[in-house]
Amino acid sequence: MTEQSPTGSDTPAAGFVSFVGSGPGDPELLTLKAVARLQAADAVLFDDLSSGAVLGHARAGADLIAVGKRAGRPSPSQAHVSQLLVDYARTGVRVVRLKSGDAGIFGRLEEEILALRDAGIAFEIIPGVSAASAAAAAAAIPLTRRLAARRVQFVTGHDVTGHLPEQRNMAALADADATTVVFMPKRTFPALAASLIDHGLAPDTPALMAENVGHPDQSLTRATIASLAESLRDTVSSKPALILYGPLMEP
Amino acid sequence: MTEQSPTGSDTPAAGFVSFVGSGPGDPELLTLKAVARLQAADAVLFDDLSSGAVLGHARAGADLIAVGKRAGRPSPSQAHVSQLLVDYARTGVRVVRLKSGDAGIFGRLEEEILALRDAGIAFEIIPGVSAASAAAAAAAIPLTRRLAARRVQFVTGHDVTGHLPEQRNMAALADADATTVVFMPKRTFPALAASLIDHGLAPDTPALMAENVGHPDQSLTRATIASLAESLRDTVSSKPALILYGPLMEP
Repeated sequence: MTEQSPTGSDTPAAGFVSFVGSGPGDPELLTLKAVARLQAADAVLFDDLSSGAVLGHARAGADLIAVGKRAGRPSPSQAHVSQLLVDYARTGVRVVRLKSGDAGIFGRLEEEILALRDAGIAFEIIPGVSAASAAAAAAAIPLTRRLAARRVQFVTGHDVTGHLPEQRNMAALADADATTVVFMPKRTFPALAASLIDHGLAPDTPALMAENVGHPDQSLTRATIASLAESLRDTVSSKPALILYGPLMEP
Repeated sequence: MTEQSPTGSDTPAAGFVSFVGSGPGDPELLTLKAVARLQAADAVLFDDLSSGAVLGHARAGADLIAVGKRAGRPSPSQAHVSQLLVDYARTGVRVVRLKSGDAGIFGRLEEEILALRDAGIAFEIIPGVSAASAAAAAAAIPLTRRLAARRVQFVTGHDVTGHLPEQRNMAALADADATTVVFMPKRTFPALAASLIDHGLAPDTPALMAENVGHPDQSLTRATIASLAESLRDTVSSKPALILYGPLMEP
C-alpha cells in the first residue's frame, strides 16, 4: 500500500487523487479516461448517485467506499468526506473520487480540492458528462437554441441544509430567453416557480422533469413551470431528478 | 448501402442518425457510447473541431465527411449541412453526426433535428463532455462554488455572422456571483468585457482563457476581464478557445 520515499525513510509517498466525473449513471456514458482511472485505482470513494453499474469498471480488489451523499437526505459532513479522501491518499495509493455527472458542477469539489492542497496531495480532474446534457439528450432536444435560447444556466434547488439557495439575481433565472437547468429541484421547485412567476416569467413556460436520467427506469415529464410546481407540491418521490425550463424545443 | 423495405419495394430503408458529442478533443474524453457509435457508423459527418484523433475510433472503410465548421471562419450554410445529413441517412446507413463538446450546447443541433424530423428520419443524441467542463478541469477548478458561484452559465461570443450575439439580459452576464463560460469568445471579448464593465462587473473580475482544451498544446491564461480584453484587442490567434470569468477559485 505504501511506497518508499526517495530519501529511503518509511514515510509513505503521497498518493494521488483523480476526481472523476462519472456521468449521469449510464455506465456507457463514462469517458475512456474515467474507465482507465477506475481500472487503475486502489480506492474509489463514491457518492450514492455515482454507484451501481459505474463501479463495475473498478478492478477487483479495489477498496470501494460509499460516502453517502444522496438527494433528499441530509448530507454527511463534507469535512468528514474530505478527511477520508486525504487519509486514503496519504497511504500512498491511487484514489479515484467519483462524482456523478461532471465533477465540477454542484459536486462540492472546491472543499475537497482545498483539503488536498492543505495536505500537499496532488490531484487531477477528469471532466464528465453533465446530467444536464444527458437530460436534454434523453428528451431529444438541445440545451441552447440559436435564436430562442442563447444562454444556458445551471442552478441547484438544494443547498447543504436542503433548502432553496438564495439567488441574488432572480432576473437571470426568470429570463424567458435562457434555458435553465435546476439540479436537485424537486422539494423546492414549487417555491422557485412561484418566485420565477413573481419575477415575470410566464406560468406556461415549458418545463421538463427528467428522473433517473441515464438509468434503465429513466422517465421524462413535459409540463409547464406552473403545472410542474403544482404536481410537486404534494407528492415528491425520492428519485434523483433535474428540471429544465425555458424556451425548450418542442418534442 | 440500402436495405429492402418490408414491402419489398426498392425504396431504401430510412437510415438512423446518432448525434454524438465528441468531447473537447482529447480522444480519451469520448464516452464508451460515443466510441461504440463511431465503430458502428457507415458515415461520420464531422466539424473541424471534432476531427483529428477522435476520428481514429471510426471503423476502417467508413465514409468520413468534413462539414467544415471552424471558429473564426465563416460557417458553411447550415441548410447545406442539414441536407447532407438527410441525404446520407436516406441511403439507409448508420450515420454519426459528430459535434465537438456536448452536442446540445452551441452546436446548431436544433436545425439538424428539424431537418431529420421533416424527412422522417429517426435519431438519437449521445451527450458528451462539454468544453466548459474540460476547461475548468484543465485549470483544476470547479465551475460552481457552494457559496461564491451558485450559478454557472454558458453563452457564445460568436453568432453565425461572426458577431457578438445580442444578449437581452446583460445583468445576468454581469453577475459577480455566477461563473460564466463564453464559447468562441476571442474576437468579441473586448466588446463583451466593455459591456460587462458598463453593467457593473468589476474590471478585475478573474478571467481564464483556455485554448486548445483537450489537445496536447492546450494552454491556460489567468487574467482579469479587463486585462484579457486588452490583450485580445490587437492580436487574436485562430486557436479555439473558451473564456471563463467570475468568482473563479484561485489556483
